[in-house]
Amino acid sequence: MAVGLQEPETLLAVKGIQLASVASGIKKNNTDDLVLIEIEEGSQCAAVFTKNKFCAAPVTLSKKHLKLSTPRYLLINSGNANAGTGEQGMADALKSCELVAQQFGCDAEQVLPFSTGVIGENLPVDKIAASMGNLQSELSADNWLAAGRGIMTTDTKLKGVSRQLELQGKTVTVTGLSKGAGMIQPNMATMLAYIATDAAISEEVLQKCITDAVNVSFNSITVDSDTSTNDACVLMATGQAGNDLIDSADENYEQLYKVINEVFLMLAQAIIRDAEGATKFVSLQVNKAKSIEDARQVAYTVAHSPLVKTALFASDPNWGRILAAVGRSGVDFNITEIKIFLGDVCIVSNGGRDPLYTEEQGQEIMKQAEILIQIELNTGNKSVCIWTSDLSYEYVKINAEYRS
Amino acid sequence: MAVGLQEPETLLAVKGIQLASVASGIKKNNTDDLVLIEIEEGSQCAAVFTKNKFCAAPVTLSKKHLKLSTPRYLLINSGNANAGTGEQGMADALKSCELVAQQFGCDAEQVLPFSTGVIGENLPVDKIAASMGNLQSELSADNWLAAGRGIMTTDTKLKGVSRQLELQGKTVTVTGLSKGAGMIQPNMATMLAYIATDAAISEEVLQKCITDAVNVSFNSITVDSDTSTNDACVLMATGQAGNDLIDSADENYEQLYKVINEVFLMLAQAIIRDAEGATKFVSLQVNKAKSIEDARQVAYTVAHSPLVKTALFASDPNWGRILAAVGRSGVDFNITEIKIFLGDVCIVSNGGRDPLYTEEQGQEIMKQAEILIQIELNTGNKSVCIWTSDLSYEYVKINAEYRS
Repeated sequence: MAVGLQEPETLLAVKGIQLASVASGIKKNNTDDLVLIEIEEGSQCAAVFTKNKFCAAPVTLSKKHLKLSTPRYLLINSGNANAGTGEQGMADALKSCELVAQQFGCDAEQVLPFSTGVIGENLPVDKIAASMGNLQSELSADNWLAAGRGIMTTDTKLKGVSRQLELQGKTVTVTGLSKGAGMIQPNMATMLAYIATDAAISEEVLQKCITDAVNVSFNSITVDSDTSTNDACVLMATGQAGNDLIDSADENYEQLYKVINEVFLMLAQAIIRDAEGATKFVSLQVNKAKSIEDARQVAYTVAHSPLVKTALFASDPNWGRILAAVGRSGVDFNITEIKIFLGDVCIVSNGGRDPLYTEEQGQEIMKQAEILIQIELNTGNKSVCIWTSDLSYEYVKINAEYRS
Repeated sequence: MAVGLQEPETLLAVKGIQLASVASGIKKNNTDDLVLIEIEEGSQCAAVFTKNKFCAAPVTLSKKHLKLSTPRYLLINSGNANAGTGEQGMADALKSCELVAQQFGCDAEQVLPFSTGVIGENLPVDKIAASMGNLQSELSADNWLAAGRGIMTTDTKLKGVSRQLELQGKTVTVTGLSKGAGMIQPNMATMLAYIATDAAISEEVLQKCITDAVNVSFNSITVDSDTSTNDACVLMATGQAGNDLIDSADENYEQLYKVINEVFLMLAQAIIRDAEGATKFVSLQVNKAKSIEDARQVAYTVAHSPLVKTALFASDPNWGRILAAVGRSGVDFNITEIKIFLGDVCIVSNGGRDPLYTEEQGQEIMKQAEILIQIELNTGNKSVCIWTSDLSYEYVKINAEYRS
């Protein structure tokens, strides 16, 4: 029941990137569960990871490998998170990298491992080992859709976006994949995202690009306030588009960033549109705040409120629950100066229900699948926008029955 | 489906306290919705209120009246929260107090108003006015059970506790009522609690008593992380038991506090046992923490995690979700030194699943209705215990359909 989300019909190849997706048997139902992304030598690669202290073995190892070398291969399995697996988990993650290194002739440090799925079960490395030949024969620049499907877990829709722009007369392509549907929160989530461009861009500027783009996309979405142990987002730049190297935040960078940011945003919003049990796609704007921190705190308090989320599910314009969540956010404001809007209808002003507001107006907006909530604090001039979903029977069902 | 919660068969009268409960018509179904508690002159009274900035008109007015005078009457309506009602709400709350003052011959400042129910609708003061005569004729020292029923909203069970102790050869009684089932969080919740004792105790020591007792009871429970606009807890001491005035935290105070604390704890736990849709009563202990703040932060992160709560509902020992919640709590610890126990079974040690743990052990504990989760941080020697419930289909149903 993804909200307003279509699977892409095609995804554009990115020069210098090849992908493969196979069914290794980690997932029970013989669907694809092992993906390899090959990055041509000379490319740049930047990544951000979960801030959960109990981060999974592949996260720890990927961070280490990124410091030691420039990645040539990303190995992603879906079905087993290899998290909470202690020393065995680290050994298994390393072994996976060694298998790729052996098959493809690189160093183990040039391989980044990623895992998503159930926590606390050992990774079946033998199944990964047995799939190496298959992965090699499947490698192709045109496998973005297959790879997008191979990294899915509870996702109901494949999430992928392609965009192109002209840079110094050269066509630059940006293509990205993401997965994730629950355990989604700021600071990454049970989500993985892989975005590649053939633009030429320096390592330093690429790092700035991923940091800025993640902040307003993957770090601005929440389903259920849970941050997973396995989240990762990788941005690759192969430099094969023919543009001059972008090595500062100049005009060319701004043009490229605009498109990369759009791809990040669409991939992040796709996760919310496909959130577990979601029937609503909610944009939550907090405006005129004293600081970005204040604005985010108010936004997340509202977005995480189970009472607000169940009211959204019920299409019930129960604005008192929004007001109560804002009130307990811990942020300082004057309650008589705050305004709350559902869509463009003012529901709260002067410390209570707006005198012109009618229940019918509220119901008209709440029954839609895409809802905008705007909160005006009137303590400053900062704004944020985050995206979230509702809390439905289906969410409880999916998460109560996940392992059975 | 309250978990292990029986309604009290009787509640003991407290010398100096009379109560009345009537059906004024604020609730639609002609059940009791208006309660008056009369406190004899010469009594002491202390109260704590919600910290929600959008606190309801009766909360604002009660705080003001407490500063001006010593309360003689508590007027409690259930069905309408008189919150988010702006200036009209303040006028309505004051009018309610004036009605009591007129009927019973006291000052309006000696009346504290309390409201619980739907947010954002104006209080029908005419119905309260029409009930004054009824309230007066119903006043009786033996009406604790009726009053307990009169303050209920979505509660499925009446919540009340009586205890007695001997103090200097005198029998001291402590009787309390509470209500609340959702929108429950630290710093008070959609809960009201009224506890009275006939012990003689000074105003200052009574204030210490309520602060200490609320901290480890009503401020240590959470259903859904939502703090209501209307929460209040009142502790009354009539001084009619015959003991010498307790005016310091001496041995007599300790004896009395022990019993009052037990009453607070049972009333607070009753709210969790009757939490909306609850099928589990969960005690969450965080031990060996560096500070109380650290311990509470870890405890509430786990208690609020929808993934942990749905796993509890499913009786699924999905310990990875507990571990992931601890990991994202933002508290500093060494992941190899942390231990997590389900009941007395160690599930996590040394950064992963405990080698001796078996799924069968976990399932045995999770299928019980009352579950203990212990988290040992090993960063210090502080402990906290909080109580919470699971997240069920029924919770979503209750909160999605509340207004329809």
